Amino acid sequence: MIEQLRADGSLRHLLTLETLDRRQIERLLERAQSFVRPLGERPPRSRLLEGATVANLFTEPSTRTRVSFELAAMRLGATVVQLEVQLSSRAKGESMLDTIYTLQSLHVDALVIRDAEPGVPALAAAHVAPHVSVLSGGEAHVSHPTQGLLDALTVYQHKQRFAGLAIAIVGDIRHSRVARSAWHAFSKLGVSDLRLAAPATLMPEREEFAGCSRHTELASALAGADVIMMLRIQRERISEAHLPVGEQYFGAWGLTRERLALARPNAIVMHPQPMNRGIEIASDVADGPQSVIRDQVRNGVAVRMAALAEVLSCGRASA
Amino acid sequence: MIEQLRADGSLRHLLTLETLDRRQIERLLERAQSFVRPLGERPPRSRLLEGATVANLFTEPSTRTRVSFELAAMRLGATVVQLEVQLSSRAKGESMLDTIYTLQSLHVDALVIRDAEPGVPALAAAHVAPHVSVLSGGEAHVSHPTQGLLDALTVYQHKQRFAGLAIAIVGDIRHSRVARSAWHAFSKLGVSDLRLAAPATLMPEREEFAGCSRHTELASALAGADVIMMLRIQRERISEAHLPVGEQYFGAWGLTRERLALARPNAIVMHPQPMNRGIEIASDVADGPQSVIRDQVRNGVAVRMAALAEVLSCGRASA
Amino acid sequence: MIEQLRADGSLRHLLTLETLDRRQIERLLERAQSFVRPLGERPPRSRLLEGATVANLFTEPSTRTRVSFELAAMRLGATVVQLEVQLSSRAKGESMLDTIYTLQSLHVDALVIRDAEPGVPALAAAHVAPHVSVLSGGEAHVSHPTQGLLDALTVYQHKQRFAGLAIAIVGDIRHSRVARSAWHAFSKLGVSDLRLAAPATLMPEREEFAGCSRHTELASALAGADVIMMLRIQRERISEAHLPVGEQYFGAWGLTRERLALARPNAIVMHPQPMNRGIEIASDVADGPQSVIRDQVRNGVAVRMAALAEVLSCGRASA
Repeated sequence: MIEQLRADGSLRHLLTLETLDRRQIERLLERAQSFVRPLGERPPRSRLLEGATVANLFTEPSTRTRVSFELAAMRLGATVVQLEVQLSSRAKGESMLDTIYTLQSLHVDALVIRDAEPGVPALAAAHVAPHVSVLSGGEAHVSHPTQGLLDALTVYQHKQRFAGLAIAIVGDIRHSRVARSAWHAFSKLGVSDLRLAAPATLMPEREEFAGCSRHTELASALAGADVIMMLRIQRERISEAHLPVGEQYFGAWGLTRERLALARPNAIVMHPQPMNRGIEIASDVADGPQSVIRDQVRNGVAVRMAALAEVLSCGRASA
Repeated sequence: MIEQLRADGSLRHLLTLETLDRRQIERLLERAQSFVRPLGERPPRSRLLEGATVANLFTEPSTRTRVSFELAAMRLGATVVQLEVQLSSRAKGESMLDTIYTLQSLHVDALVIRDAEPGVPALAAAHVAPHVSVLSGGEAHVSHPTQGLLDALTVYQHKQRFAGLAIAIVGDIRHSRVARSAWHAFSKLGVSDLRLAAPATLMPEREEFAGCSRHTELASALAGADVIMMLRIQRERISEAHLPVGEQYFGAWGLTRERLALARPNAIVMHPQPMNRGIEIASDVADGPQSVIRDQVRNGVAVRMAALAEVLSCGRASA
Repeated sequence: MIEQLRADGSLRHLLTLETLDRRQIERLLERAQSFVRPLGERPPRSRLLEGATVANLFTEPSTRTRVSFELAAMRLGATVVQLEVQLSSRAKGESMLDTIYTLQSLHVDALVIRDAEPGVPALAAAHVAPHVSVLSGGEAHVSHPTQGLLDALTVYQHKQRFAGLAIAIVGDIRHSRVARSAWHAFSKLGVSDLRLAAPATLMPEREEFAGCSRHTELASALAGADVIMMLRIQRERISEAHLPVGEQYFGAWGLTRERLALARPNAIVMHPQPMNRGIEIASDVADGPQSVIRDQVRNGVAVRMAALAEVLSCGRASA
């Protein structure tokens, strides 16, 4: 397990929320909140990271997470370069590290890494020089810490608390880094009623998600919930789950207005996107008054600004 | 039809020139002219759009139009992100809108959209929040408003007027968004002698291009012309036109020095690029003294700076 | 042969080191050294090239050379655009020039060109307007001038001299632009003992590399060497060389600790990357105390800053 903190307690890497404590997560959320602006207002800009260089290493050409990190870095005044590299498959082990060392020698201060194989961000973090930070932009099914933070921030903005909330996570939990990071965040922040709802074959192993209740049908998970987090389901997973595809999956597991009525009247609906409308979620729910899906996107930039500001400006101050 | 203007009459979107009036087009051309600098001088830079974010959504990896918009935005101080997305085919309807809403939630102020299917820019414009602008970077065969403006600006720079000019548009007019936007611009700006010259199968439907004369051989279209706009022809279109490919198309429709001599002695030659030299245009004409093709490229950045400045700074001032 | 200098003696293009004299190369190295900072310090930033536009035309999506040029330009305050174009094959001759003219008309001041075919940078340089500069980012097997400069700078940093050094270049010299530019640099800078070591089929033609000694086994080339430059070998070249692939090539030509001991005790080991560890170089040598491979990467940005500063700021001053 990589140590994510410096000796002085400041955040150096952000690979997972699992080993952060409540105080550290709260600090990131508070800083992120300071970067949030309502839609229609210009986002905050500063020169805090002027002179710093951030490299985005993503295995896919263009995703919302890549653009979100890019905008976060630029709005703090950093220089950003994009690399589309296949760290895990094209260049395994030592040659992956050669790419990391090369970026380090180009005076890159932070590497944002997204990769489909587990362990790549940690391997990078274990080898970079002390002044370099690694941030995960999504690691296999394992971890997606900035997504966990933006989900927590979105819940807090709407509920003003974590204690006492009932949060249902619904869908392909087994393969979801989003669910894992949400669980890390919510459990540390004091949410005690965390519910997992999924077909048996998409439910994680028993030893994972300690403290969560498990529901193999939707109704009991939604009953009285304050927050409903729908996950993206992939076609190939549905057949793995021995479920009929598309509409029939929707019949059993899709979030409709009728089902949403089982939750609390002011329950909020979340989704990490991209959505399969009509498969895991009905369009009128996705666009309805209880949906906070677009808030999640807006909060994503704020959370990434906070993460970059923490690892880069603190590091620099103490260097 | 999407309303492109705000209640105060300022330009909010730029999807087509068809619904703009003469005054609005002239205003864009005047503002564009203020950004034009001779080759060899540094282009103007300002902080007018500092704090604004422009997203380039292009379906092809790298085109001159994409770079032209990118430079226009950067030279006005805006932050620019590039996305290569297939809005029309990969993500139809609602999921296309999800991409648009995501960018809006990332505090993007202007979306520049190029897509091979008609209707995508208008669909985006119909759904974005009031403070967000949409600019077309080329829409199917329908519209390419910044190209129409740069063509008009180029003509004006060389002729100092529109009234009384004879302008011939030659080639694959049927499938050309360039021809349609040129027609919109020139007809509103007072050009009365607009000539279409094309093989019958590449000629647009009768109900289109009102007010233009039609020529199924080149000589009568060129006779006495002040401006000759050659269009790019694609191999597959030539065979559609039941014409022999390459050299033999050139024999019937290519612009040679001999044919250029049919036009006025000071006639200018234009082409939107990329050129098929030796197919629709002879190299010595493309590079000759009457060619203003490179002026068109230079004017393209100026026109895009003007369009971005209009939609973003006006919008902001009145917000 | 393209003239790389302006009438006033300042550098306009950087296509090859072959026609530069010792003084000009030294000037570039001195300027590059002023941009070098130790790992962990922020790299220097300036507004020297503010208002200038640099276009990176690379035929491959993302390489360390592309990022190195991009960071070099941004750290000097220039605006940078990336184009992935196939100048040589997709768009031969005149259409390649149309792309160049388009960028020139977009007010691009410097074109950085990497292409797999020889002659493309020179063709561009022969046609651009007087205020535009062309820099090679690697030209076929012919030339890679910024790599030659960074190699020379790395040697100088560690040896404080060129005279009297014994430098061995090892591997696929025949197909290597890195070897050719290193030879240009080192021979002009006064290195008299330059050694080429390669299997016969990977050795360049006799008329090339004048003044170098040739070694068809490794031991004699390494004996007493001050600097060892290992080159990347490609699988297809190994079989061309009638050598068994992989481990067995390593057996004959790979740089191991034992073989390194043949060189001087303070000899340095260089490699242009990407490395094939276990084929041309042992991992413990690549990562060992005599390796200066990461210094080469760091020096690469400094050299590219120097080259851009020379061609752009001098040009501007004299314009």
